[in-house]
Amino acid sequence: MTTKLTTEALLDDLSPAERERAERVESVLPALRDAAVEADRAGEFPLEHVATLSEAGLLGLVVPEEYGGLGGGLRDLVGACFAMGTACPSTALSFFFHNSSASRGLLPLEAADAGLFDSSEEPVVRAFAERLLRRMGEGRWMANFASESAKSAGSAITISTSAERGKDDDGNPGWVLDGVKSFGCATGVADDYLVAAKLPGGDTAEHLAVFMVDRRAPGVGERARWDALGMRASATHGITLDGVFVPEQDALALPGAFVKMMQVSRGSFVGSQIAGTACYLGAAQAVYDFAIGHLTTTTFSDTGAPIGTAPFQQELIGDMTMHLGTARHWLLAQLELETSEPPKLPKQEVVSNWRVAKGTIAEEGFAVARCALKACGTSNTGFSGTVSRMYRDLTMGLVQAFPAERGRLEAASSIVSGRESTQFGGVARPGS
Amino acid sequence: MTTKLTTEALLDDLSPAERERAERVESVLPALRDAAVEADRAGEFPLEHVATLSEAGLLGLVVPEEYGGLGGGLRDLVGACFAMGTACPSTALSFFFHNSSASRGLLPLEAADAGLFDSSEEPVVRAFAERLLRRMGEGRWMANFASESAKSAGSAITISTSAERGKDDDGNPGWVLDGVKSFGCATGVADDYLVAAKLPGGDTAEHLAVFMVDRRAPGVGERARWDALGMRASATHGITLDGVFVPEQDALALPGAFVKMMQVSRGSFVGSQIAGTACYLGAAQAVYDFAIGHLTTTTFSDTGAPIGTAPFQQELIGDMTMHLGTARHWLLAQLELETSEPPKLPKQEVVSNWRVAKGTIAEEGFAVARCALKACGTSNTGFSGTVSRMYRDLTMGLVQAFPAERGRLEAASSIVSGRESTQFGGVARPGS
Amino acid sequence: MTTKLTTEALLDDLSPAERERAERVESVLPALRDAAVEADRAGEFPLEHVATLSEAGLLGLVVPEEYGGLGGGLRDLVGACFAMGTACPSTALSFFFHNSSASRGLLPLEAADAGLFDSSEEPVVRAFAERLLRRMGEGRWMANFASESAKSAGSAITISTSAERGKDDDGNPGWVLDGVKSFGCATGVADDYLVAAKLPGGDTAEHLAVFMVDRRAPGVGERARWDALGMRASATHGITLDGVFVPEQDALALPGAFVKMMQVSRGSFVGSQIAGTACYLGAAQAVYDFAIGHLTTTTFSDTGAPIGTAPFQQELIGDMTMHLGTARHWLLAQLELETSEPPKLPKQEVVSNWRVAKGTIAEEGFAVARCALKACGTSNTGFSGTVSRMYRDLTMGLVQAFPAERGRLEAASSIVSGRESTQFGGVARPGS
Amino acid sequence: MTTKLTTEALLDDLSPAERERAERVESVLPALRDAAVEADRAGEFPLEHVATLSEAGLLGLVVPEEYGGLGGGLRDLVGACFAMGTACPSTALSFFFHNSSASRGLLPLEAADAGLFDSSEEPVVRAFAERLLRRMGEGRWMANFASESAKSAGSAITISTSAERGKDDDGNPGWVLDGVKSFGCATGVADDYLVAAKLPGGDTAEHLAVFMVDRRAPGVGERARWDALGMRASATHGITLDGVFVPEQDALALPGAFVKMMQVSRGSFVGSQIAGTACYLGAAQAVYDFAIGHLTTTTFSDTGAPIGTAPFQQELIGDMTMHLGTARHWLLAQLELETSEPPKLPKQEVVSNWRVAKGTIAEEGFAVARCALKACGTSNTGFSGTVSRMYRDLTMGLVQAFPAERGRLEAASSIVSGRESTQFGGVARPGS
Repeated sequence: MTTKLTTEALLDDLSPAERERAERVESVLPALRDAAVEADRAGEFPLEHVATLSEAGLLGLVVPEEYGGLGGGLRDLVGACFAMGTACPSTALSFFFHNSSASRGLLPLEAADAGLFDSSEEPVVRAFAERLLRRMGEGRWMANFASESAKSAGSAITISTSAERGKDDDGNPGWVLDGVKSFGCATGVADDYLVAAKLPGGDTAEHLAVFMVDRRAPGVGERARWDALGMRASATHGITLDGVFVPEQDALALPGAFVKMMQVSRGSFVGSQIAGTACYLGAAQAVYDFAIGHLTTTTFSDTGAPIGTAPFQQELIGDMTMHLGTARHWLLAQLELETSEPPKLPKQEVVSNWRVAKGTIAEEGFAVARCALKACGTSNTGFSGTVSRMYRDLTMGLVQAFPAERGRLEAASSIVSGRESTQFGGVARPGS
Repeated sequence: MTTKLTTEALLDDLSPAERERAERVESVLPALRDAAVEADRAGEFPLEHVATLSEAGLLGLVVPEEYGGLGGGLRDLVGACFAMGTACPSTALSFFFHNSSASRGLLPLEAADAGLFDSSEEPVVRAFAERLLRRMGEGRWMANFASESAKSAGSAITISTSAERGKDDDGNPGWVLDGVKSFGCATGVADDYLVAAKLPGGDTAEHLAVFMVDRRAPGVGERARWDALGMRASATHGITLDGVFVPEQDALALPGAFVKMMQVSRGSFVGSQIAGTACYLGAAQAVYDFAIGHLTTTTFSDTGAPIGTAPFQQELIGDMTMHLGTARHWLLAQLELETSEPPKLPKQEVVSNWRVAKGTIAEEGFAVARCALKACGTSNTGFSGTVSRMYRDLTMGLVQAFPAERGRLEAASSIVSGRESTQFGGVARPGS
Repeated sequence: MTTKLTTEALLDDLSPAERERAERVESVLPALRDAAVEADRAGEFPLEHVATLSEAGLLGLVVPEEYGGLGGGLRDLVGACFAMGTACPSTALSFFFHNSSASRGLLPLEAADAGLFDSSEEPVVRAFAERLLRRMGEGRWMANFASESAKSAGSAITISTSAERGKDDDGNPGWVLDGVKSFGCATGVADDYLVAAKLPGGDTAEHLAVFMVDRRAPGVGERARWDALGMRASATHGITLDGVFVPEQDALALPGAFVKMMQVSRGSFVGSQIAGTACYLGAAQAVYDFAIGHLTTTTFSDTGAPIGTAPFQQELIGDMTMHLGTARHWLLAQLELETSEPPKLPKQEVVSNWRVAKGTIAEEGFAVARCALKACGTSNTGFSGTVSRMYRDLTMGLVQAFPAERGRLEAASSIVSGRESTQFGGVARPGS
Repeated sequence: MTTKLTTEALLDDLSPAERERAERVESVLPALRDAAVEADRAGEFPLEHVATLSEAGLLGLVVPEEYGGLGGGLRDLVGACFAMGTACPSTALSFFFHNSSASRGLLPLEAADAGLFDSSEEPVVRAFAERLLRRMGEGRWMANFASESAKSAGSAITISTSAERGKDDDGNPGWVLDGVKSFGCATGVADDYLVAAKLPGGDTAEHLAVFMVDRRAPGVGERARWDALGMRASATHGITLDGVFVPEQDALALPGAFVKMMQVSRGSFVGSQIAGTACYLGAAQAVYDFAIGHLTTTTFSDTGAPIGTAPFQQELIGDMTMHLGTARHWLLAQLELETSEPPKLPKQEVVSNWRVAKGTIAEEGFAVARCALKACGTSNTGFSGTVSRMYRDLTMGLVQAFPAERGRLEAASSIVSGRESTQFGGVARPGS
């Protein structure tokens, strides 16, 4: 008989191959759990986790086997993020962003397979994609930097980091990057940084390019020390790029390539954001389990009954149970939408659903922690206690990426007008 | 190519047999929709619906084919209630209660198959069960009366209706019933009333018995005219039983039979309550669809843009979308829990989940209507308009059976103490 | 010793003069209460209330004594609407709209006192204002029609009803009105209708004029029968104006007069809208009192304890108490803001506060009814029961005037940009 | 012309004497503000604040002038806590608890004035009360320790700390205390600790006694380092008492004295808890002001408009404004209830209102911070930023003393049964 894995608390229908990969995830949880409290307090990503995850093969979790990976898919990633989220949400989130990098290899290959590139472009695209996937398959950590600090009224993300043609000291051709990436997990931890920048000559998604930057390359710096309310061990410092040289082969700098990648994505543009949300659900599950344990084993001094039998505790337990269920159901429904074959809904509706799902999962997951905090009392408000730590991590879910209010409004706009919100400046308005 | 059925807006994976049954449901929707407004205004169940549903075979929807039914299961019933709920929630709810009667045939058979009855009891039990199922399979309407008006602090439902041994005018042996059933759909509409009463000699679930009462039997009366805020066309008048004679063969009056039926039930004691909730979800879907239509096709006189583009409308559309999704996801998750083979959770957890699910679906479905009402404005507050009518029907979902607050507290109690709440006086305290 | 008046459940610091007026209000409550159920069911304003209120002097409640009124102010009106709201919210709301007409007399006088009119205009303005106030002081009902059905993206209210110069059959000069007023209480009940229309030559607030229209004048019709979810006895049918002649002296058709009236108003443009909200608070108070009474006097059959001691009832009672308190506190705080001398805040902030207050009072008052409904159970869902009736009336508060979401967004806009939202097309953009 | 004081953002009707005291409060705010960030990070109460507050006379804020104090009342204390809360909620909360100690002097004097003590008791009581008040009037910090860690199902607070007759090394008579006080601000900071303990011979409120313990007395220890999620600089470590000797004159150990004190209290038993809540309201005001400032001065890079004009920001600003208003209104209404002359409600209702008010103010104040966090984005989630810091402090308000759910349930119980919840074991059941 098999033991129930943490992943199976979320996904109760793992295939044998999925279960084998989930066992690898399970094997690293003790290490994550042991380091979590101190990592949170210090606000430092535990560097030893890179080796732990790499050696378990997990850095290649969603990389096809032909490139050295484990061949997992979105379900594996969601399950892994959930399981790691129960132990150390910061590590889970960093791990998620690493895996999201794989889309920059998988989507180009898909677009190539779909014949979206011409014969001169295709080999370039495939070479970059395979190079990226192989690095991940080898067990290298590939951090993913998208957001920048400037906000624009017209689009959700604005890219001002620039790429110019240049050469290295030996005269090899390549690109020179300049700019600042405001937030990104595993800064100073990952082996490589995946960076989006705009090519000369334009300001639309057509001109976006993707680069793999060596963490140790000259000109790469840390933007600002990440010292946040929660997700403190995720090393989300962000980076500065000051004339950083990137060799030709580490760039996907073909105009239009980015747009073609987006055309073949299944859900939202990176196609795996739901796994990021699973980290928060894992945290919510952990805080729920802790609270139920605390409330059923701590007893009143006069009656001996569990303190969880007090009326206000019962109210909070009922609420907490509802919130956890709502978060779970939304996540599982979205996962089904993004993985079912054939697709159940057109991509635009999948994305619109995602916008509502993301915020709802974050809000409801947070609500679990808020109820737990109230139910477990002042003695569980200690900075490093499970309740307080998960509460702080779940707080970040209310803010990061986009708040629930924003997601709902974007979905409403999409429902009324049939237009999907613009993720990148200009993207949604081709020809305008 | 097949047209998408209303049922498929909820269940997108119908088997061919399920789809065939869903087509029967689809065929009656126009009749339900046409009669809904006037039925609601008058507060009268449209009597012609009995023939409509009977002729479509739907009164035998969940009755095994060997007894003349369509052989559907819980998924069919949920789908039918949802679809009917989009047209006329009152009819849908009445239809649900009719179908819930089938459990009084199916569960005894299951308990008999499981060997819970001894050799003298088994034939009696099977005879009653088959008789009941055949009536439903023939297309007779079997209303189900459970609740009584007395409230007790110790259990959710108290039965004071009594059954005594008696004879009819011709000296045939049977039972004589006295009591009042406070609420029950299809009073004065159904062919038969299914009634629970207690046998002489005790006051626990062991002494509960089930009777099929002919609507026209002497002594059967209407309790009080149902003239409620919503679900006005459901004829939920309740009945009075004043020395009503029931022939031997129409009674399942074996002490302990009721408890054995409950032992084999899958989810909550009747095993199909989730379908009642699906009626409300159907109403929520209808009001959502109406509101989106109204907000996207009505335009501002100055700009020509849909009024749904106004900021507060966008907020309400986003909220409404979230609420509908939450209601759907909870219903589908509970349905999966109650139908998956093998079962995913122990029965007690399934029931505990149901308690939270019921209230959440009701609250979130109602929230859809509340948002729609605000978004569609004063001109859609007319008594008989779709928004207002569905709003009133959904209001009833907040109250009927049990409010969300009660369900959550019962789940909490179950979680903390491992005890499931007592549905019937004494049941949950065997040996006490 | 004096008995506590219903008004004093809201305002506990009445001056002697206020108390004298509140006693008049108290004297009519039994008549309002007695007629409320049938009026609600029939959807008819009880015509005898006109005489009841007129004879009690209450139609002149806020009219200065020199014009035959009682000389009350905003506090009196709020108290009266609250008290009447506990008995019959429909009558209370109709009474509020009648009183809001007084502002069309009081504000012109104030603007005249402030020297905003030149010497040729002033006598005209004063004559109209005094004529209007005298009618109200004499005990005539003056319904107030503002809203029209066209929606515009640019402003909250658009006026398309037009006034043209014309003569009556005897050649007397006056104005001819054409248009439709979508909603307005006391249609077919009031003696006079106060109507806003635009003068020839422009489309801004500068061109708005005010007319007193005799209910029986040729060309005046009922727009559409008011048959709504709630506030059913308010006769909110709306009117059609088809070439209706209004004599010169019943018109305030001076260009710019409307804008000058708005300059001197204290809070929102009519200066007494908070009293409309007090009707809903009265309804909430009534449903709260009913529910507490029901829950403390109905007892469990087994233990004899009040059913209000059950855990879920306790939760609902606590919630209900909080919601009622929140609604009260917002109303009293806004009343203080609009009546304190000297003013505590600039007018724009008072209006911005009002926008949040209106929605919050409506939402929280409704929440009282929703909790009461759940706590009082299915047996209190009867269409005409106190809980159900007040619930339906309070539902209207979520929609009428503007939903809470809209009010909050308008306040936010005002906070961020310093601009107050445009109530009438063009008003907030003078010179544009 | 006078500048507006921070206190006046809450209380806009200060008397001249109140304003003079509020100016003293204003004078210390810069020192509090300057130290707040580092104190929060380190989790240390800034010891220099003792001198700052003492020298400003504020440690005697609510002590009558005859004992060296400033003669302020509950309004002064609420205003001071609010103002300090905008700068450093931890200091504000510690200051509140210091001031709450004054009730142990004021209430005995009041009970004595009311003739509740006999002639032998009265001088003892007055001597203790005056001694306590004089210490506070002199500028000594008097921390107040009430709660203990054992929870009992029957009462809110259980006292197991014991007082036995004893002598010091010189043979002077007094009391010997043993026990643990779980939480209490200003541990290791205050000059004196006010401690409740039970006298030999009984276990009811009759046997409760009050002691002033010198912080440096042998046997006094720190319970556990306070290192919480929020209110980190409040030194809420709690104390251990291990055979601590207290001289006769520092004890109010008259059986029954405690109960008599409670009889004369105005609101809840300490009579000033609302001021504790004002600390949280101050924090909410600060985070609101910060957020509005941030959202109106930070602009979009493409349009130059404030980021606060984005639709989701507008939604959050509207929500935030509503939440702050609700918290303010509840606090001001409760303050009015507890200070009006003559009292508006019987004491039991004042206490019942307080139970709802406390939770509502805490929840709504927290909601301001949650909205602000979402609106201000990831760049404002830094651990020490205003948003994040106040968010963490406001989180503590959800838990400390009692959660909103508990308060509402206690109020409901009081409403239904007329019994006020038991604060101290046995108190509410005299004679049992």
